[in-house]
Amino acid sequence: MTEQTLPATGREWHLAARPDGWPTPGDFALVEAPVQAPGAGQIVVRNEYLSVDPYMRGRMNDVKSYVPPFRLGAVMEGGAVGRVVASAAEGFAVGDAVLHGLGWREYTTLDAAKGVKVDDALPLRSYLGVLGMTGLTAYAGLLEVGSFQEGEAVFVSGAAGAVGSVVGQIAKLRGASLVVGSAGSPEKVRRLTEEFGFDAAFDYKAGPVAEQLAEAAPDGIDVYFDNVGGEHLEAAIGALNLRGRAVLCGAIAQYNDTRPPTGPRNLALAIGKRLRLQGMLVGDHYALQPQFVAEVGGWLREGKLVVEDTVVDGFENTVDAFIGMLRGANTGKMLVRVAG
Amino acid sequence: MTEQTLPATGREWHLAARPDGWPTPGDFALVEAPVQAPGAGQIVVRNEYLSVDPYMRGRMNDVKSYVPPFRLGAVMEGGAVGRVVASAAEGFAVGDAVLHGLGWREYTTLDAAKGVKVDDALPLRSYLGVLGMTGLTAYAGLLEVGSFQEGEAVFVSGAAGAVGSVVGQIAKLRGASLVVGSAGSPEKVRRLTEEFGFDAAFDYKAGPVAEQLAEAAPDGIDVYFDNVGGEHLEAAIGALNLRGRAVLCGAIAQYNDTRPPTGPRNLALAIGKRLRLQGMLVGDHYALQPQFVAEVGGWLREGKLVVEDTVVDGFENTVDAFIGMLRGANTGKMLVRVAG
Repeated sequence: MTEQTLPATGREWHLAARPDGWPTPGDFALVEAPVQAPGAGQIVVRNEYLSVDPYMRGRMNDVKSYVPPFRLGAVMEGGAVGRVVASAAEGFAVGDAVLHGLGWREYTTLDAAKGVKVDDALPLRSYLGVLGMTGLTAYAGLLEVGSFQEGEAVFVSGAAGAVGSVVGQIAKLRGASLVVGSAGSPEKVRRLTEEFGFDAAFDYKAGPVAEQLAEAAPDGIDVYFDNVGGEHLEAAIGALNLRGRAVLCGAIAQYNDTRPPTGPRNLALAIGKRLRLQGMLVGDHYALQPQFVAEVGGWLREGKLVVEDTVVDGFENTVDAFIGMLRGANTGKMLVRVAG
Repeated sequence: MTEQTLPATGREWHLAARPDGWPTPGDFALVEAPVQAPGAGQIVVRNEYLSVDPYMRGRMNDVKSYVPPFRLGAVMEGGAVGRVVASAAEGFAVGDAVLHGLGWREYTTLDAAKGVKVDDALPLRSYLGVLGMTGLTAYAGLLEVGSFQEGEAVFVSGAAGAVGSVVGQIAKLRGASLVVGSAGSPEKVRRLTEEFGFDAAFDYKAGPVAEQLAEAAPDGIDVYFDNVGGEHLEAAIGALNLRGRAVLCGAIAQYNDTRPPTGPRNLALAIGKRLRLQGMLVGDHYALQPQFVAEVGGWLREGKLVVEDTVVDGFENTVDAFIGMLRGANTGKMLVRVAG
């Protein structure tokens, strides 16, 4: 066993109550807990970056689902990346960079088999974003679920977010005829066209989505990547061309609703237009990982992919970062730098 | 040229006005028109059976669509089958049975290339139903769009209708673990289980669809064949299992709405369950025709497939048959026998 000096305790964020509608800081508790020494085959990781993601809101509800809900009174889980500070596992040495799923704590003691060593030639935080689940979601959603083909027109909602900003760029790099994005502020809209290379973008708060989409994509769209649900999905169903595809990836507009949302009233258009709407979770698409890392990693090294993370400093600010992300405070991936 | 004695005139049904909501007899006009002698390459068919179908309601609206609207003041078109009474086309003789798409008239003069000679060893009307577009819709929708696999559970709405009654039977013949149907009267529900071999059926007017579906399929469903839209689609989205498929084939519950319908409020469930909802029109699936005719024709000859048509006698009753079909007066395919 190798180790640095392990502290006696570390901080963890627990889920203290199930949010009713929008989460509040009172739904979480900051807890000081012992740092467990590693058992045989285990490592202790000092986390450097934590991920806060939209899907976490859904797991806070106590509903039957194919992904189990977070447990009350337990540590929140989520993607995290850090460095080994103690190891009783073969092949893991102090200082190794490790990606794992036991976030929202400063130190994690875990079976080494549940961690993945990553190459620290690239910034560690990229493994939570463009080279991680976020990037793979964008890649698999657009190409596999959305069956995107060169020359097609793509619309992305929540386009300034972690997934959306990558979807739009992959579409352009793969030869889209048009890439349109929507976002929730003039500043984000500016970034979409000026920094992320979208052909057109609009502020969904500035007017009806259907009208703004029709103006940005007068010849319609072929693929819609949905991070939002609600009005956006209805507008996209209207704009989709014959045999268009909608990738249902998120519905952040609805996650904090306490009343049932309205559904797309124009869904029957899917019959005549032979549309395909398909839900996705990234976990179904790990087989794409090698192709994804090769292609997206290549674009990153060549500087063809613009990545803008929003980094909140300080473990104690994790909940604020999470709630801020739900309200759209981020551009690109929202991350917490543990040692702020 | 060969011919029987051609009458000077025949009757046609014209679209006189675009219906606002439910069609009424006043939206149609019965017109006496000359019967054209066949030009070179043409035939004259005396129609024996006409098809009245749900899709026709949509084509009565003057809306931009991928299928052009019916023209005002022109003959209504639709599937028809009859016999040649005059021919100036090679390969077509008086008495030949011909299927074509120029219905809602007693006599049709058409380019022979637009008709298909059919084998009259089977009842002619079956070419408008189980061996025609109706049957192919059921076959392609279940197997190709719905990706149905042996051992899966299937739910069909509008199950006593022309398409639905065939979908359920194909599912059983192909090894479904459970086939559930909904229909709009106790008598139709009885027929679904007693005559068409459905495992379970319910009357959607007798209670909430979601509750009745949960009772009939407590372990959920894998494929939903939607002829109805509205409440049925929402209930099915709730009941679909992981990676379930919804075939969006019709929305008859909505065709006569003058206000926008509500959409499925639970569509975001498609994300976690990775559902696929896909619209279809039969015209995309003609490549399946040989396989379809072989398999379904075989079941028909072996008496494994129960076909119940509802036949309305008399050309003058075509509009009543059409409106009756929209209101659910039929079991199986609704047909008009021209000479009543």
